[in-house]
Amino acid sequence: MLDQIRVVLSHTQHPGNIGAVARAMRTMGLSDLRLVNPREAHPHPDARARSKGGLDILLGAQVHASLTAAIEGCRTVIGTSARGRGLNFEVLNPRQLSERLRDRRDALPAAILFGCEANGLSNDELGLCNSHVYIPANPDYSSLNLGSAVQIIAYELRMAAFGGAVSDICEPGDLLDAPAPAEHMDMYFAHMREQLLRIEFMKPTASEKLFGRLRRLYLRAQPTVREANILHGILKATNEALDGTTAARHAAKADSAAGDQHPSTSTPDAE
Amino acid sequence: MLDQIRVVLSHTQHPGNIGAVARAMRTMGLSDLRLVNPREAHPHPDARARSKGGLDILLGAQVHASLTAAIEGCRTVIGTSARGRGLNFEVLNPRQLSERLRDRRDALPAAILFGCEANGLSNDELGLCNSHVYIPANPDYSSLNLGSAVQIIAYELRMAAFGGAVSDICEPGDLLDAPAPAEHMDMYFAHMREQLLRIEFMKPTASEKLFGRLRRLYLRAQPTVREANILHGILKATNEALDGTTAARHAAKADSAAGDQHPSTSTPDAE
Repeated sequence: MLDQIRVVLSHTQHPGNIGAVARAMRTMGLSDLRLVNPREAHPHPDARARSKGGLDILLGAQVHASLTAAIEGCRTVIGTSARGRGLNFEVLNPRQLSERLRDRRDALPAAILFGCEANGLSNDELGLCNSHVYIPANPDYSSLNLGSAVQIIAYELRMAAFGGAVSDICEPGDLLDAPAPAEHMDMYFAHMREQLLRIEFMKPTASEKLFGRLRRLYLRAQPTVREANILHGILKATNEALDGTTAARHAAKADSAAGDQHPSTSTPDAE
Repeated sequence: MLDQIRVVLSHTQHPGNIGAVARAMRTMGLSDLRLVNPREAHPHPDARARSKGGLDILLGAQVHASLTAAIEGCRTVIGTSARGRGLNFEVLNPRQLSERLRDRRDALPAAILFGCEANGLSNDELGLCNSHVYIPANPDYSSLNLGSAVQIIAYELRMAAFGGAVSDICEPGDLLDAPAPAEHMDMYFAHMREQLLRIEFMKPTASEKLFGRLRRLYLRAQPTVREANILHGILKATNEALDGTTAARHAAKADSAAGDQHPSTSTPDAE
């Protein structure tokens, strides 16, 4: 879907903005950029400077002498509107637009038109469109920077295309960073309970209410294996301190460090 | 809700980006900007130049010597993460974050932290956060401009707060620009049908299939009262031409224009 969406900038005044648009497109996976009569010769040094990782898109942008040439072959043409109401055109927000383009693949390729910074699209240009898109903004000041406007629409297109899952970009993690299994946490809670009785924070006859609250607090945080090991290690060290065996444990640890650099899971080091 | 959300920029390198952030915030209705150790003295001329309508936000921004001072009083602290996976923190996308802040008002005020352009937030800074937000981006190049990142998150906050309705910013329209009532269109279709029979485009015995298709085409466009009047006027003029009364009509119109500047609804001028 993203390959079939064209960004068309008409009569752009500041070449730096063209560079910012190329970068915004690249971050969201768009690649087809067209320029209609930009004010400065293309490509301009200011555009290059702002494009960063979008430089290939900037340098590959076709320049057209007319908007009709730039939208040739597109089945859907969308105009960005500075007002929430067009010339009797349907006005969509970026999310509605993106969902429609996702759900109506036979309406692709599509072009999204952006007018010049000062005045937006002319009425003639808006008249070439099938519908308009408006970015809901503060009615007291709704003038978005051109790069920012492209960024929001490109973001919504990507959200529609890929569902916005954050996890799909996770690298496969260390298993120690996976949430601890339930039985691991249950063992921890059992030991914590013993400890709370031992230090007389709770009485054996106390209701489960307080302890249930503590359990929920920890479960809400969904500790990883590594974190659960640390919590468990703290309980164990506290017990040892209460036993008066602290000195013995420190001596054992010094021995262990000399022979083995890996902390054991029962007495992990703090990260 | 938007009044209770603070944008915190830590160690920003380019003051122009601070200006772009102020503008992005203003377009979406955010206003509380905090700066932690910006590299250049604040306010910088580059920041002013880029802030446009957000100048008041830029000039009102508090500068803090530490991040902990900047987030004082916030019940929720969110760090923007350059990766989809934090230090065992929950990672939300901007939409999930915005909906959560909307649905959990007692978790406000909230601060959203943005790190320096080159490296993002440090691990120490991320460690101050309750959760992280990641803008789903192209895995091949996910480096958004700072102003663009703030723009997307501010946009999602506004979408969550106001539902993204485009109509809420429409000026109350002329009733002629409202969709034509059904009976108005039905009358038009009846006249169109007579006309199509008259010009023998359809036979009286033809199925309703073709005419139904025509109806749907017009109804899909949902003509306004003004447009329906124009369509009706075209039918009428065509009929008159077929009757050979064109000359008489033009003469009548010239008379009318001399006396009354308002086109009648039955023979409207083209816009």
